Amino acid sequence: MPIEQLTILAPGLIGGSVARSARARGAAGRIVIWARRLETRRAVAEAKLGDATAETPEEAVQGADFVVIAAPVDAIVPLTRQIAPHLKPGAIVTDVGSVKAEITREGHAALAGKGAHFVGAHPMAGSEKTGWEYGNSGLFTGRTCFVTPGKQTDKKALKAVAGFWSGLGANVVTVDPEAHDRIVAHISHLPQVVASALCAFLSTRDPGWRDFGGAGLRDTTRIAASDPYLWRTILEQNRTEVLKALGGLRAELEGFESALQRCDWPAVTKHLERGSIYRRGLH
Amino acid sequence: MPIEQLTILAPGLIGGSVARSARARGAAGRIVIWARRLETRRAVAEAKLGDATAETPEEAVQGADFVVIAAPVDAIVPLTRQIAPHLKPGAIVTDVGSVKAEITREGHAALAGKGAHFVGAHPMAGSEKTGWEYGNSGLFTGRTCFVTPGKQTDKKALKAVAGFWSGLGANVVTVDPEAHDRIVAHISHLPQVVASALCAFLSTRDPGWRDFGGAGLRDTTRIAASDPYLWRTILEQNRTEVLKALGGLRAELEGFESALQRCDWPAVTKHLERGSIYRRGLH
Repeated sequence: MPIEQLTILAPGLIGGSVARSARARGAAGRIVIWARRLETRRAVAEAKLGDATAETPEEAVQGADFVVIAAPVDAIVPLTRQIAPHLKPGAIVTDVGSVKAEITREGHAALAGKGAHFVGAHPMAGSEKTGWEYGNSGLFTGRTCFVTPGKQTDKKALKAVAGFWSGLGANVVTVDPEAHDRIVAHISHLPQVVASALCAFLSTRDPGWRDFGGAGLRDTTRIAASDPYLWRTILEQNRTEVLKALGGLRAELEGFESALQRCDWPAVTKHLERGSIYRRGLH
Repeated sequence: MPIEQLTILAPGLIGGSVARSARARGAAGRIVIWARRLETRRAVAEAKLGDATAETPEEAVQGADFVVIAAPVDAIVPLTRQIAPHLKPGAIVTDVGSVKAEITREGHAALAGKGAHFVGAHPMAGSEKTGWEYGNSGLFTGRTCFVTPGKQTDKKALKAVAGFWSGLGANVVTVDPEAHDRIVAHISHLPQVVASALCAFLSTRDPGWRDFGGAGLRDTTRIAASDPYLWRTILEQNRTEVLKALGGLRAELEGFESALQRCDWPAVTKHLERGSIYRRGLH
């Protein structure tokens, strides 16, 4: 079933990339965009990111078959509730939030009994950059996009959402929302916290030292430049799983520190080897 | 004073890059190379990495004005002692080791009274790759190269070593060996330990998860793929400073974990902000 009208709400880096990618691949007949700030709406209209720009979310979803809510995680459920009465029957709503348990549950509840369907998604295509203007049509190519049906998710809607993201070039991985949150706590949220903590600590020493750093420092800390407010909302929704992952990392670091403390070089080497083997397996 | 003969001992990624860069920039009249393994000597000779390949370190330094010891940190002082009796008067020896206090002290002692000079150096241009074949002539361009004179270092030799590295395109930073070791414990060795620990921990969970990772996981962990044995020798020589840095990072991580535990969102945001500000200042 081809998408006649695709509506994108609150485009940032991801939403901007959805618009460009959908257009480049002819994924929708028509693209309508709503952005919260007036100046963003104007800039988006001027750049012709979509075919039309709407003044309100309610107006933007009029007649839409498919809606992508690209807002920060704490704004997704409120927006879903806001547009619920204005969706046409059979409309499908997805999102791009980095945490899925709460959003999937509340998103479904917001549309239940209204003839429209919510299916959560999370394309693993972030960046330390934010803003629709950084979006590009190839952002999802070859990247994982999680699709996270709940127990009550409509099967046809699930298929449509998976098809939408694979149509934008992503490798769709379907998992339940709780498994998703546990996985990303480890492979996305933990690296973020570690990079942030490393930078926060280094800022307490001579900050001029950073200018001497090589590619290692640069790469290891790149994501620490991300927006603190977006990450706060992500950590808020995935607190329990992130705390578990942090506890595991802490134990690993303590083991390393202890081996170094007691000059146990075989144990130090073993830690480094385990890390190296894991990383060499990352393609 | 132009270099007539440059000798490079034990080329890996860095030594291979010194050879290519020196040739590309005409930094020496003639380049002689010695590698420990016979097959490396043959491959290096076949690839014409230098103008000549020697069978032994002693032979390689015959007639050399300038010697770069590109061996792993635990082999630098032994090699310096080995070549000491064979250096011509006024010959200058430098190295590329990632730790400098012990090497600078022992390197100086090995050549003292022999009419030759040791001046430690450390180009910040590593990679998770090892091997001379990955070397390239632009590796040092715009990168920091620490030069670390001790109290007794000959001033003319220091000038020659600083001139050599800036001649290869590096930004030379002159600091005492102890300050160097404290700086790199923070901006190089700590990121390595953190990336390794992150990967070592993730390897204890479902390793298949890594295939879902985005650019964040990839960049944050890249250097974990580095050679564990090279890093063991670096950590061995810089153990005290790395332990201090690790203690500081641990306190930072514990502060973050505690803020997350007690849902202190302003404190969580503050940690992320401090990291973000530091990283945005890294150019």
